[in-house]
This record gives sequence, structure tokens and C-alpha cells, in this order.
Amino acid sequence: MNPLRVTIWNEYCHELEDKKAKANYPEGIHEYLRGALQADDLEIRTAWLKQDKEHGLSKKLLERTDVLMWWGHMHHEKVKDEIAQRVVDRVHEGMGFIAMHSAHMSKPFQRLMGTPCTLRWREADERCVVWNVNPGHPITQGVPLHFELPMEEMYGEAFLIPQPEELIFISWFEGGNVFRGGCTFTRGMGKIFYFHPGHETYRSFHNGHVQRVLANGIRWAAPAGFRAFKELKSGDVMKKL
Amino acid sequence: MNPLRVTIWNEYCHELEDKKAKANYPEGIHEYLRGALQADDLEIRTAWLKQDKEHGLSKKLLERTDVLMWWGHMHHEKVKDEIAQRVVDRVHEGMGFIAMHSAHMSKPFQRLMGTPCTLRWREADERCVVWNVNPGHPITQGVPLHFELPMEEMYGEAFLIPQPEELIFISWFEGGNVFRGGCTFTRGMGKIFYFHPGHETYRSFHNGHVQRVLANGIRWAAPAGFRAFKELKSGDVMKKL
Amino acid sequence: MNPLRVTIWNEYCHELEDKKAKANYPEGIHEYLRGALQADDLEIRTAWLKQDKEHGLSKKLLERTDVLMWWGHMHHEKVKDEIAQRVVDRVHEGMGFIAMHSAHMSKPFQRLMGTPCTLRWREADERCVVWNVNPGHPITQGVPLHFELPMEEMYGEAFLIPQPEELIFISWFEGGNVFRGGCTFTRGMGKIFYFHPGHETYRSFHNGHVQRVLANGIRWAAPAGFRAFKELKSGDVMKKL
Amino acid sequence: MNPLRVTIWNEYCHELEDKKAKANYPEGIHEYLRGALQADDLEIRTAWLKQDKEHGLSKKLLERTDVLMWWGHMHHEKVKDEIAQRVVDRVHEGMGFIAMHSAHMSKPFQRLMGTPCTLRWREADERCVVWNVNPGHPITQGVPLHFELPMEEMYGEAFLIPQPEELIFISWFEGGNVFRGGCTFTRGMGKIFYFHPGHETYRSFHNGHVQRVLANGIRWAAPAGFRAFKELKSGDVMKKL
Repeated sequence: MNPLRVTIWNEYCHELEDKKAKANYPEGIHEYLRGALQADDLEIRTAWLKQDKEHGLSKKLLERTDVLMWWGHMHHEKVKDEIAQRVVDRVHEGMGFIAMHSAHMSKPFQRLMGTPCTLRWREADERCVVWNVNPGHPITQGVPLHFELPMEEMYGEAFLIPQPEELIFISWFEGGNVFRGGCTFTRGMGKIFYFHPGHETYRSFHNGHVQRVLANGIRWAAPAGFRAFKELKSGDVMKKL
Repeated sequence: MNPLRVTIWNEYCHELEDKKAKANYPEGIHEYLRGALQADDLEIRTAWLKQDKEHGLSKKLLERTDVLMWWGHMHHEKVKDEIAQRVVDRVHEGMGFIAMHSAHMSKPFQRLMGTPCTLRWREADERCVVWNVNPGHPITQGVPLHFELPMEEMYGEAFLIPQPEELIFISWFEGGNVFRGGCTFTRGMGKIFYFHPGHETYRSFHNGHVQRVLANGIRWAAPAGFRAFKELKSGDVMKKL
Repeated sequence: MNPLRVTIWNEYCHELEDKKAKANYPEGIHEYLRGALQADDLEIRTAWLKQDKEHGLSKKLLERTDVLMWWGHMHHEKVKDEIAQRVVDRVHEGMGFIAMHSAHMSKPFQRLMGTPCTLRWREADERCVVWNVNPGHPITQGVPLHFELPMEEMYGEAFLIPQPEELIFISWFEGGNVFRGGCTFTRGMGKIFYFHPGHETYRSFHNGHVQRVLANGIRWAAPAGFRAFKELKSGDVMKKL
Repeated sequence: MNPLRVTIWNEYCHELEDKKAKANYPEGIHEYLRGALQADDLEIRTAWLKQDKEHGLSKKLLERTDVLMWWGHMHHEKVKDEIAQRVVDRVHEGMGFIAMHSAHMSKPFQRLMGTPCTLRWREADERCVVWNVNPGHPITQGVPLHFELPMEEMYGEAFLIPQPEELIFISWFEGGNVFRGGCTFTRGMGKIFYFHPGHETYRSFHNGHVQRVLANGIRWAAPAGFRAFKELKSGDVMKKL
């Protein structure tokens, strides 16, 4: 079996400007995750906002990407509309898409959802308990029924997404909030997984359970692969059977 | 328009035996709710476990009930199989069913779900914040985006129900737990709403928001009413069109 | 109770150019539907593509519209992006949206879905049987378990929409195709109903069952109305509870 | 990797009594499917109604079964309640369950659904077209967007099941009916797939596409496997975190 081709896209701005972010992820979140997620069945590339005029996301790269992971936070609007749409089109064709942390406000995610995707938030060094509400799902295998993050940015309801096809995790925050922080969606042939941990000033990506969830997510979001999307999308006139 | 015919069924044991429960609901939870929910468009009856050999749920009463509310806790197994099935059959025919608090373990609810319906719990006088995650839903109209219960029994995940058709509320508990505490399901022609507040030693049913949710739930769960279930269920041989 | 404010938007090109379309709907589909759907509890306006620079959809009109019905076919691309987005934004705020027939390829519908929304089709004067697979749903009250359209344009799978929240109707076509032709979705506070009958050269909008479905759809899609969307969408920082 | 342990359960009455059924499946549907589905990664056993007092479904066998396939038609009521419940309990623990053809009326399926599961039907040697409405799903990989069965028993709406979690196939019948003939559900840790082809007097199980769907279904329904169900179901008192 050929390895899954994963591309980790990162805004890669905080880590260059912010002390804490730099200390947590000296080479950037993308490089940290590349190391943490490496495995025999994965071939992992990285790309970032200022890599080139296409934010590192050439047509060729996307065509060769089975699963795209996305981390963005402060510069969503700097992603060109054309590149955002290129990502959306590839998801429709079957590319998996894993939206991490603030990627809920990224252009590709918003276009795939069809909703504002806003939420309530608070940076207050809060304890977070992640509850697994879908214990039989492939994404939660090897993950306990709940696990703690000593500090994470509070992301809370109301979260303006469509009702998830599958709700996987609900997060509890010390300050009294809850959040549908792990959700799946399908758009066209592509599978989408949103997962909230990963604020740049905390160390959630160093957490083994978070890594496990992302690793499972990659395998779950991999394209099924037998179907040509052109045939599917054609919208052609059809003869009577 | 004829009023909706609501029957509130209560186990009615705690309130006769337990001081706190009695203090909160001197005439029983059923009578308390009858008073709290009264309205021009509702005709409310009550029934209870030891009312008669059929637990007050005669065929005639159920045929004349549009929405059945159910509170039970310590004596689920004392409800006769035949009566439980009578309730299930009426739900299939279109009767709404509102399962309150421990009714998640009641025979009718378990049979309608097809799952064990177990959960984790704790009686610890805990603060509970109820989060509205479906702000456009009829059940949440007039209900704020979140509200607090100063003390409620902790009901927490993992909650072994089928994935709800609509997730309405998620509850946060002081001790670190979350719970899908407001959910809807459809079974046959009948609509089902589960809502967790209502432990007998606390005063959640005195809370205006809880009352509003139940009041909205009754109207939401009312049968649509144009369809004869016999025709629907017949399972007959059908002629070619 | 104030009447529901309904706006019927029509491309209104076929009826001016095509003999059959003109014969079926001499004053346009929008005017035909205004007449057919009139009721005491509705206040119906119409608007069309070439009405003015905003396609008749001024901010003011949309702010005063509770449910927008949309019929378009050959000139989807002529709807300005800005106006399409204005419609999408109003749906998020709670305006109901009923997409009829070819509106599956309209800009507002596609943006709300996040998918290509393509399908297979055939104009072949085909018999169509519409099957009600959600007999307890408000949209199907007073509608039989199946009804026939003597001729309708074949719309068939694969239909590239997200999995509907509720599947209401499945259509059977003489030539061997099936279609998820009645579906609901929620986006933000707004309810969306897609319903396929209504090709301009046939007379489906003259059919009493089709009219009943649309009439029910309007009432179902009406905004719930207690919630200010600004508060919901704010995405503000939130204090600890 | 250990092979998946599959048990094919068959009523095995028609094939002993009916000429056509015997001609199609001389050693029974169970033995025919065992042959057709054999593969290196599967270890397939069979069991049948009159095999022994437990219908061949001993506790030991079920504990060692990862996926149970079920075919029943005329003697659903002869399956003992205790054995039906044993199957249901194992599904909750994570065993996959594939209900074929008339198994929609089997005791285990009905108990898992919580609904009557009735449908309309007709034996009329009808042409059937099976439409794939979930082309990215694991169950439809290698399966065309539609395929034909020259003759199959008509199973049609209204089909009284809960709304499927995933709708996979819709079938078209010559006589004017449609049917949600391929659906998935989750109950507890177990995955359930219903698929309608397989009337004993026709040869649908000889069809390569039907075999492919079942083969895919087995792999999809396999238990995820990392979780002890006892821990999950416990319903214990939980300490504060």
C-alpha cells in the first residue's frame, strides 16, 4: 500500500513573533506536528502562508495531497480567495481536511460549512477536560473516555456550525463553558474533521492524546479512492435506463 | 383549536419517603408540574406508578394523550412490561414523549432507543450550567444561550444513547463533567425529547428556564395529526402504481 | 399574530421567451405562486432578476422577509455576488429559504451547502412519483404517502449536497432514476427546504400536493424569532461564569 | 492482523421447502454467502435456526464473532427472546450486525431500532435499480453509482425505521416504488448495516455488486476494538475530576 500523503499547512506567524509560541514550537507548529505524527504509512509535507505566492499550496501539491491539515489564527484574510477555493474544490474531490484550533474561521472551512463559524472565546490559562462522546468511532480509538489539558484557550458555545454529522468530543472548561470541539462533516467526496486544541501559547500539541486524535483523524479522513470525481460531479444529461 | 392533552406520569415514591423531596414537591412532582405548566392550550392529567394495576396508564387514557411526560428513578423495573410496551406503541402512533431526569433508564425510553442508556452520575450538590447549542430550535425559544442550576445531580458522559437527531442542550458540571442533556429523537410518528434536570432533592423544576424548556417541549412533541398510523404501519402488499 | 412575510423570487426569463412556460405561467412563476399560496397568515411579495440593480432584493426588503422562496434556472451567474451573499447572511440571521427546482444551482444555495450541488438530469416528459419518507414531519401534513406528477424534468442522483438533516421526499422517475428531492438543512438560525418539482414547461406548480408542500414549507421555515442574531454571532470574548 | 470473525446466520427454511430457493441456494443462503465472501482476512462460520436449542448462537460463538450477518423471513417469531437479546447485547458491546433482506423484521433488528420496521412489499419479478447516494462511503467503494437487479422483491416506503445515520442506497422499482434500501446505524459500540436485496426465489446474492457491498459492509461494521464495553456501560458513580 502506498503511504498516505499528508500536507500540514500552518500560518506560521505567531511562532516567529511571540516568545511563548516560539518556545513551544521553535520550528513552527507544522514542523512540530510533522515530527510528532511521522509513521511508516504517512508521507508528510509542510506548507505555510508566506512560503510563496500560492501560500505553498500549488495545484500540483494539492493534487498529491490525500489529507490537508490546517492551522491558522491571525491572518485568515491574507489567504487568497483563489487558493482557498482550490482547497475547497480538492475537498469536494475527496481530499481529507483536518481543521485545527482557529481554523474554524479559515476561508476553506467557512466555505465548506456555509455558516459564520463564530464562537465565544477567552484566553485565561484554563483547565480543559476533553470528553469522548463517540467511543466506537475510528477517531477515538486508543483515546480514553476523557483526558485533560492543563491549559487551553477557551472556545465555547454558541458555535455557529451546521449540526455535525458525528459529534466526537465535547470540551469542558474551568470557567463554566462547554464546546463541541471535535466534529465531523462530509462535503462532496471529502471528509472533514474539526478539533479545537492547539493554541500557540500552550502545549496541547505535545499531549499524547491530542496527537493520537490527530493521527486517527488522518487515517479516518483519507479518501476512499475508488471513484473519479469528474464522473460524479458531471451533472450531465442522463439517458433512460 | 382543541387543547393539547398532556399526561404527566410520575413514579411518586421519593416524595412520600424522602424529606427533601417532599419539601420540594409536597404533592408530588406530577402535581407540581401540572401547576407550573398549566396554560390555555393544554389539558393536563397526571398518573403514577401505584395509582392502579395499570400504573394509571389505561389504554383509554393513552389514546387520549397527545404528549406523555415521564419521571421515574428508583422503581423502573416495577413498571409492567405490558404497560411499557403500550407506551412505546403509542409513541409509534404519534404520541409525543418527554423523558425527564432518570427516565433515561425507564423501560419505554430504553425500548425506543435500542441502547443501554447508561451514564455516569454523582450526587454532590453541584452547580450545573445548561448550554443551548441549538438556538434556532422551537424548544429553545425564550431560553437564554446558557442558564445555571445552583445544584443538580451530575449526569455525565459516556451516555449510551444513539446519536441524537438534534442535540439541543449540553450541560456543564462543576466537578469536570459534560452531558448531552437535551436531545431529540423520532420513532415512528412520535417525537421524543430527553431533558436531564429534575433530581427530586433539588429544586430544578422550580426554575423558570427549566419550565420554559418543558413547556416548549410539549408543543414541539405534539403529534402532527393528519396521518392514520394504521395505514402507515400496515406493511401490506402494494399494487404496482 | 402578525402575518409571515414571504418573498417569492423568480428569475422570470423563461416565461418571457418560451411558449410553454408562458402558457403555464402567463404572469411568471412568482405571480402564479403568489396566487396559489395566498392565505390569511401570509403577506406575500414578489421580486425578480431584472427588477432593478439589486434583483429586487434590497436590504430593506430582505430585512422584512421571514421566508424567501427562490426559483432560478438559466441565469444563476447573473445574480450578483453581493446580492447572493446578502441572502446568505439573512438566512444565517434566521430567514427561511425555500429552494425550488433548479435553485439547487443558485449562488445562495450553493454557498449555504458548501458543495457543488450538481445532479443528473433529463427532459423527457417523464412520469414522476413523489414518495413521502417522513410522514410525521410538519412539511408532509395533509400530503399523501405518495403522489404523482404526470410529467416532470428528471433530476437524479448523484446529488452532491451534504447529507440532509431530514430527508422528506424521494422521487421516482419512469426512466429508472431516484432523487432525494425534498430535504431540509439548518444554517445559522435559518431553516432551508429544497423541493425539486417545478420545471417551467410542465405544470407541477398547479398540482395541489405540490402547493400544499410549499405552503407547509413556508410555515416550517419561518424564523423562531426570540433570538437576536448579533448576540449569537458576536464571537466576543466571554467572561468566566 | 488476526482475521475478522464473521458468522452468517440463516433461517434456512425456504431452501429446504421451496424449489426456486433450493435451486438458487442448494446448501442454503448461509453456505452460498460463505463461499462468495471468503477472503484471507475473514474467518467465516455459519449458524441457523434449527441448528440447536440456541439457534446455533451460543454465548461462546457470539463472543468470538466480530460481525454477525442475519437472514430471516418466515419464522422471525421462532427466534427465542433470550437469544435475540443476546445478539442485541453483543451489538451494544461492539459486534457489527448486517441485516439482509427480511431481517428488517427480525427480533434483534427491531429491538435495536426501537420502531416497527414495517414496509410495503410485492413479489412481482420486478426490475430493481440500486442507486448509490453515498459515493464516498467505505461501503460503496468499488460499487458503481447505480446497478441493476433483473428481479427482486419490491420493498418500498413507508419504511418505519429511525432516520438512518447514513443513507447509502436508494432502490428504484419498476412498479413505481422507492426504498431506503441501504442504511447504517450505531447502537452502543456496534455498527449496523441494513441492505435489502436477497429474496430467496431470486438470485441477487449471485450478483457481484451485491457481494461487493456485503464484503465492504463486513469490513465497515468490524468493531473498533480498543474499548472495554464494561467500563463504558458501567453507569457508576464518578468522582469529581
